[in-house]
Amino acid sequence: MGTYMDVHRGMVGITAEQLNEAHQADLAIEKDEGVHFRHAWADPKSGTVYCLSDAPSAEAVQRIHERTGHAADEIHPVPLAV
Amino acid sequence: MGTYMDVHRGMVGITAEQLNEAHQADLAIEKDEGVHFRHAWADPKSGTVYCLSDAPSAEAVQRIHERTGHAADEIHPVPLAV
Repeated sequence: MGTYMDVHRGMVGITAEQLNEAHQADLAIEKDEGVHFRHAWADPKSGTVYCLSDAPSAEAVQRIHERTGHAADEIHPVPLAV
Repeated sequence: MGTYMDVHRGMVGITAEQLNEAHQADLAIEKDEGVHFRHAWADPKSGTVYCLSDAPSAEAVQRIHERTGHAADEIHPVPLAV
């Protein structure tokens, strides 16, 4: 297991409700891949969304995001944290 | 006050010790700008570092990072979080 930060672009105008819906959709199926999405942060102006997760691999994170209709543009393992 | 996610690139090979030192340097002077750096996550392989902070502005975040020798490449306000 590792920690991952993934980035979604092009989400200009995303609302709090839409962010919450997307996050809940991920949470609903995350166990299928052994992933847990801990947090998501969104900048509606630039359309950037960051998601922090614990997962067995970047591919596992992406499979969940793909199934819920919002594939990530970048997924970085972030083994270091403070 | 708002929440900000900033991104540093080109930090390939960053170690846990270096990440901690950089974070501690920011913490030591953050009050000068009314900023608080909550967390930082690093991907040594791609050289990407993400910092999450509470701050009065993106400029305030950048002034702290500049004074500690590591200006951010991107700073996004992230008013939405789950």
